[in-house]
Parts: sequence; C-alpha cells; structure tokens
Amino acid sequence: MYAAMGALGLAPSGQDKQFAAPRPGDFALRGKAAAKVVILGAGVAGLIAAYELGKAGYDCTLLEAREKAGGRNLTLRGGDRLTELNGPAQEVTFGEGVYFNAGPGRIAPWMVTLDYCRELGIPIETFVNNNASAYVHTNGQTVRARTARADMYGYVAELLAKATNLGALDKTITQDDQERLLDFLRRFGDLGPKLEYEGSHRRGFVKYPAIDLGAPLDRPGTLRQVLAAGTGRAITNDFGYDQATPMFQPVGGMDTIVARLTEAVGEDRITTGAKVTKITTLADGVEVVHDGGTVKADYCIATLPPHVLAKIPHNLGPQVTAALRTPVPIAAGKIGLEYGTRWWELEDRVYGGVTETDLDITHIWYPSHDYHSERGVIVGYYNTERNAELYGALTPEDRRRRALTQGKKIHGDKYRQNLLSSVSIAWERQPHIQGGWVRWPAFDSSFTLLQRPAGRVYFAGDWLTHLIAWQAGAMESARGAVTQLHQRVLQSP
Amino acid sequence: MYAAMGALGLAPSGQDKQFAAPRPGDFALRGKAAAKVVILGAGVAGLIAAYELGKAGYDCTLLEAREKAGGRNLTLRGGDRLTELNGPAQEVTFGEGVYFNAGPGRIAPWMVTLDYCRELGIPIETFVNNNASAYVHTNGQTVRARTARADMYGYVAELLAKATNLGALDKTITQDDQERLLDFLRRFGDLGPKLEYEGSHRRGFVKYPAIDLGAPLDRPGTLRQVLAAGTGRAITNDFGYDQATPMFQPVGGMDTIVARLTEAVGEDRITTGAKVTKITTLADGVEVVHDGGTVKADYCIATLPPHVLAKIPHNLGPQVTAALRTPVPIAAGKIGLEYGTRWWELEDRVYGGVTETDLDITHIWYPSHDYHSERGVIVGYYNTERNAELYGALTPEDRRRRALTQGKKIHGDKYRQNLLSSVSIAWERQPHIQGGWVRWPAFDSSFTLLQRPAGRVYFAGDWLTHLIAWQAGAMESARGAVTQLHQRVLQSP
Repeated sequence: MYAAMGALGLAPSGQDKQFAAPRPGDFALRGKAAAKVVILGAGVAGLIAAYELGKAGYDCTLLEAREKAGGRNLTLRGGDRLTELNGPAQEVTFGEGVYFNAGPGRIAPWMVTLDYCRELGIPIETFVNNNASAYVHTNGQTVRARTARADMYGYVAELLAKATNLGALDKTITQDDQERLLDFLRRFGDLGPKLEYEGSHRRGFVKYPAIDLGAPLDRPGTLRQVLAAGTGRAITNDFGYDQATPMFQPVGGMDTIVARLTEAVGEDRITTGAKVTKITTLADGVEVVHDGGTVKADYCIATLPPHVLAKIPHNLGPQVTAALRTPVPIAAGKIGLEYGTRWWELEDRVYGGVTETDLDITHIWYPSHDYHSERGVIVGYYNTERNAELYGALTPEDRRRRALTQGKKIHGDKYRQNLLSSVSIAWERQPHIQGGWVRWPAFDSSFTLLQRPAGRVYFAGDWLTHLIAWQAGAMESARGAVTQLHQRVLQSP
Repeated sequence: MYAAMGALGLAPSGQDKQFAAPRPGDFALRGKAAAKVVILGAGVAGLIAAYELGKAGYDCTLLEAREKAGGRNLTLRGGDRLTELNGPAQEVTFGEGVYFNAGPGRIAPWMVTLDYCRELGIPIETFVNNNASAYVHTNGQTVRARTARADMYGYVAELLAKATNLGALDKTITQDDQERLLDFLRRFGDLGPKLEYEGSHRRGFVKYPAIDLGAPLDRPGTLRQVLAAGTGRAITNDFGYDQATPMFQPVGGMDTIVARLTEAVGEDRITTGAKVTKITTLADGVEVVHDGGTVKADYCIATLPPHVLAKIPHNLGPQVTAALRTPVPIAAGKIGLEYGTRWWELEDRVYGGVTETDLDITHIWYPSHDYHSERGVIVGYYNTERNAELYGALTPEDRRRRALTQGKKIHGDKYRQNLLSSVSIAWERQPHIQGGWVRWPAFDSSFTLLQRPAGRVYFAGDWLTHLIAWQAGAMESARGAVTQLHQRVLQSP
C-alpha cells in the first residue's frame, strides 16, 4: 500500500516519522541520569543537537569559535560587522528592517527545517524561486523568463508535432497515443492550428491587456536563434526536487531559526569565541580543550566543518583524520546590494525570484519579502567554486564594482543608481568555516565511518548527509547523532 | 528602441504610464469647479472611479444596492452572513483570523491592482499559484504535480530526442542545432545516458534524502500510461500570462482593497442598500432614482454588471439596452472549508497552491498565508459555468457534501475529519450581481458603444475590458471612464 502510494507520489513527505526526540521519561523509566554532552560548533547542527538532547534534560555545553552562534545561518543587518580571513572588515550600514541572508536563503517544503520552524513558532513566508517576470541572461542577450520558456516550449512542441505527423513515431506509439500526444503538445507549446509555434501571449506583452487587447511582444526569433540563445539551463533551474516552487523562508531573516534555537537551548549554554584546540576521547568521557579552558563531558558531538575539524589535534585515530580530510571545501559567495528604491518592483514588475545568467555572478535574487517597502536588498551574485574564488579574492569594493558591471548588462544604468550600500561574503574566507559547503569525491567508507562515533565523539553536520549545503542536512544529521547517543546512554550499564 | 525592448520582453509592464489621475490643479488652471458625479455600484470599479475623481475634488456619491461595498471583492469571516437569491442564508462561523476570499483571490504582478495596493499602503504577500507538491487528479488517478510534470516532460524529451537521432529533423534543422536541441532535451526531461526517460528524482520521493539517499518513487508508468493519465491541462495551467508564478494577494484578505478605498473615498459618500430604479440623462445633468430617494448630479458612472444594468429603466436609448444585454453572465462558485488542523501542510507538505482535477470541483486551493497556524480554509471547489450551476442549485449542505465526496478522492478520509465549518457562494445567485463575470460573444460594436458615454452616463467595469473577471479590469475601466469624464469637464464651456 505504502509502495503503491509512493509510486503515485502520494506518500507523506515529512521526515518526522523516523525520529523520536529524547524525552525525560526515557530516563525515569530506566533509573538513569541524563549525561553531560559537549557540542563543538553552535551552527544549525550543534544547536539542533543541543535542542533535542535538552528535551530529555541532557546537560549540554556548546563551544563556538565565532563571535556568535549560527554558523553559516548568517543574516546581516545594519550595525553588523563582517570580518574575513586575509581581508578587510565590512561594516553593514543597511537601513532599519533591511536584512540579507548571507548563508542559506530558502527552504523546500519537504525539508525538516519547516518542522522546526513550526515547532519553534517561527512564522514562514513564501520564497519566490521561480519568477516568470525575472530575466534570463545568456550569450549576451536578456529576455524575461516567461519569454524564454514560451519560445523553447513552443519550438519543442512544434518539432515533436512535426515528427509525429511525419510518421517518425509510428513504430513507437499507437495512433491513439499520437493523438493524445498532439493534444498535449498543442497546449504545451501554445501551437497554432497548423501545429506551428507562431509566438504566444505567454511570452508577455509590451503593454498588457486592459480596456484594449494590449500590445504583445514581437514575434519570437527563429528556432535557430532560440536554440542559440542557450536558455535551457536557466529555464529548467527549478525542476529539481530541492528547487521546485514554492519554497519558503522565515519572516524577518533566516537567523530567526538561530535566535529561537538559542533561546530554547539557553544562551548560557553557548560559549562563543571558544576555539577548540584538542579533543580527547577517554574510557569514561571526553575532554575538550579550547582557548578559554577545558570541558569534560560524558560525550561529545563535533559539528565543525570536516576540513576545520581535521586540523584539531585529537586521539580519534588516523582513519578519522583521513576521513575528515576527504570532503573538499567548496567556495561560495554572495553580495547584498541595498537600494533606496525597489526599482525591480516598480519598473520591472519583478517581485521576488531569480534572474539566471551565464555571467560570473550566476544568479541575481530579488527579495521575496517587504514588497513595496522603501528599500530592499538584491543578491547581486550568488556563485560557487571558480566564480566564487574569483570574487572572493577581490576587495569588497572591487566585488561590488564587478557585480554592478555584470548586473548592468541585465538591468541597465538603474543598477548603479540609488545603490545605498553593500556587503559581500566569501564563505571560504570566513573564520572557522572556510567554505560554503563540501563535496565528497565519493560517498565512500570515509562518509560511512563518520556516521558512527569515534570513541565517545559523534560527528554531525550537513556534510554527513545527502542534503549538503542545506540546513535540513545539518538538522537531519544532528538528529541522527542524538538518536545514536541517546540509545547508547539508555543502554549503558 | 521601445519595440526592440518589447521583442525581448524587457519593456516595463506597469500599466501606469497611460493614466494621469485628475488633480485639483487641473481645475485651478481653468477656473472651473469640480463636478458632482453619481456612481452606480460600489464594487472595485465604482470605488476606483470615486477614488481617482476624489483626487481632484469631484463630489462623488456612490449608490450600492448591497449591504456593503466591494461587490465581488468579498472576503468572508466569522460573524458574516451570506444571503443568496432563492436560497437559505449562511452564517459564517470561522475562527478568529480565518478568512475566505469568496471572489477574486490572486493578482498577477503586471496588474494595476498591485499599484493600488502600493498607493493605498496595503501589504501584499505571495499567492502560490503553482505548487509542485500539490496534486493532479485526472481519470481517477492522483499524482503530485511534480510527478506528472516530470513524467510528461521526460517522455516528450525522449520522443523528440529519438526522432532527432532517427533523422526526422535533418531537413528542418542543422546538425549543430540538433546538438543544441539534444542538450536541452537531456536537461528538460532529465534523460539518461541513452537519451531515454527512466524516471527522475524530480518525480519526488517516498522518503526524501537525508543522511541516506532517501527512497525515490517507483519507476514511472509507460509512455502510454502517462499519456492516458491526461494530466496535460493540469500541468500547463500556470503557463498563461495571467496565471504565471508568482502571483500575489493582500495580507489579511482581498477586501483590504475595499476597506482602504472606502476609507480614502469617505464612507459617508457610499449609500448602501440603495437599489437604482431609474436613470435619466438630461441636458444639464443626470437624475438617478433609487429605493431611498433621488440623486441629481452632473455626470453618472454606471458600474453595475451589464445584465443588471440592462433591467433598470433609463432614457439612454435602445442601442444601449441592446448592448448591455449582449454579454452573457457566467456562473461561478466557491466553497470555503474551514479545518481545525492544517493537515495539508502537516501531512501532505502542501503549502499553498492548487490541485487541478477533472472533477466537477475543478480546483482545490490551499491557503497561501498563515502557514502553520491552527486553522485554515481550503477552497474545496472553484468552478464555473455548468459545474458552478450544478453546485449553485444545491443547498449549502449538499454543496459541502458533494465537495467533500469529491475532495476525498484526492485526500482520503482526512478530508472529512476536523472540518469545522464551511460557506459556499454561487455568484449567479448573489443579489444585484447575478454572475461570476460575463462573456462577450464577440468584442463587437456593443462593446465599443459602451466605452463611450450615453449622454452624461459613463459605463465602467471589468466587463468593459479584456481583463474580464480580474479586479485589474474593473480598475482599468474605471480609469478610462474617469479620464474621459475629466477631459469633458475640463473642456466644457
């Protein structure tokens, strides 16, 4: 039954079912005391681990090397200061109420992140991840996404309709199915009576209908021109299971998740500015040395990025070190451009969403919140790997300059006008993080090894999941570590 | 230049540019007084006319036959009472903060409606009009939209790739273009290495990836099965220029637009419960008789539905009557189902959006607001014409019963559980409205005739535009009437 539902895509997609949070009753029943746990890193994985263990009364201590909790869940606001390795500090001067999610920015509806938002009372709102009115900029040309999509679908439908009518499918499908297919293609491509693509209102209008019929766009380019435009990647960008519309964000900034978790865990349990320098697993506990002292506990959950963790002296064995060194950190960068007018809404009628480009800025994001307010932050680039390294190596001023030069190709001069301020982040240069996320060359025995504790030290983080770079990964991994640890505590003599 | 921008879909789509609101200065310059205008109907067209004329100091009076302003912009809340022609009244018992937009429910970003939201300080939020996690129910089968889409796109891509490789396009496009096409098809259909569709993660998962790879859905049905499922209409539903994602709604209910307009116009200018019984255009003014008295003014703007207006005695001539009788009223119905738990979010992970069906309920809408709150209203049907007439003819209880029976086919037993209350509307049975909207058999001379005043009587409404059934139509039409009227006043001796 479940499998049949699955085939139709009907099985509930909540991830909840597998996880049972530790409860105080678990101990009461077995006459045990809750253990003491030291958690390395107060990012999302560390906070969730502390939050879930806290439900059963575990005594958790979090050691965070950075100045505040949250890790890559970082929302920047006016008054914040952003430092980076080998670079000048940036002072954020955004106006009141303006924010920039410098790390994760969107949540898919099936992700456990939404369950935590619900549980923690964090209001969510739609994140527009696909906007027909946003642009596609490829091979030097800019068109609205709706136009690119209508043209590509139109021609694909026409070509397949032609091939069908020429008999190319006669050996593949029956005449009845060909009729059904043509019926779909007519609709899919908005084809004319001769099953040809002659343009479509779906492309958009110079002036939309009102009292009059409006002024549709000119006719589309030829098939050759449309194929040469190379918009394919852009218009299929939201097809993936993790990018499909709709997506969501917490109202007021992604770090609301960090704030509510910190509140629930207890701020006094988090020591910030505490860089870990040694990890020792012992027969009866763990010992963690940091800048400010030594913490002894029954267990440890290490949630630092693997490449950071690998450099900390420990007695967990060479296999653990080798495994931690396996995933490759990936550079990722973003710039927040604060404008004094939301011209993208007023002039372009772009309310949220993403412009896809083949430029080194890759994407431009328009804010999905506070529509029609005075100011707004555009994400002027969100790039990874080579492009991110290129921007990361520049000074903040040069990053902005380059982002503006690129964005101007799409938006024209207004992209420079009314710019009030900006702040950019190169995650590979962030102290104690040093990467946007990691890539496993293969999900091999190293990946498997770290799913299990080394002595009394457990590992957790998005990097230990198949949801890398998503907060949901950090959360799922933390739940996994918590489950293992709690079972061990309950079963220990 | 403008035309070239248009071709690329880049021209600003704001409708603003054509309209200049009347200003007090217009009169000061010409030594004229603002005229007195009687507006028939305080729906969106009437309110916008009064609002725009009010900017220049016109003395407007609105006569509204119904008990409150707004017309089809109707949001129902607990404590409201809904009456209909030839049917029992319904008491709305929704919980606090719960509402149901019984009339218009969404706004496309290019529509002038958003300009008014901005101008009137009405906060807007995203209306999810396309949800990959919502369902498609056709031919007795239910699948997630993402699954239906992945399968159809997958097979379309495979068929065209096959045809291409068989040489079917050799006479149509060059080898280079065939390569470009195949590159797109691979991406579009998520095809395997042999350019075959073998299923895709895009279909969704029984269990989404987490620490493990997750459990993808079973393999898709055959091409024949996918074609037979008949999901084509459903998965292209948001392709139109007026349905493309994202869309928007006012925070707190569509009638916030009515509330802010009423405030701006002045509530004292609106006489409710005033049914118009006679309209007379005179050499020097107009005279409108209603239940409660007679209003004399310099001009009249009649914004009633044409089929209602046609029945009111007037001296505007038989051509006007004939023209008013031309458009055909269309039935439209909706039911709001209030649940005590938002099971569609908690269990189905459906946050907003629309399930498309081939049942007589046509659509099911999930609320795009107040996610994760305790209660919520699902639109259990939103249908038109024959289906709407069928439901409209039932008692409210029978409408609910039928809607539940249909919805259960998609959602199972939970569709009946936790149902707290419901309210349904049959627009063709709404007093003084008597239709969801109208259809013009042709946009012929009747349509054109009514764009011009008959004597001193102007006409306005969505029915006089190419944006029928949209508030933007009512707004654009009102602006048109205001512009004509104001020019006449300024030019009159």
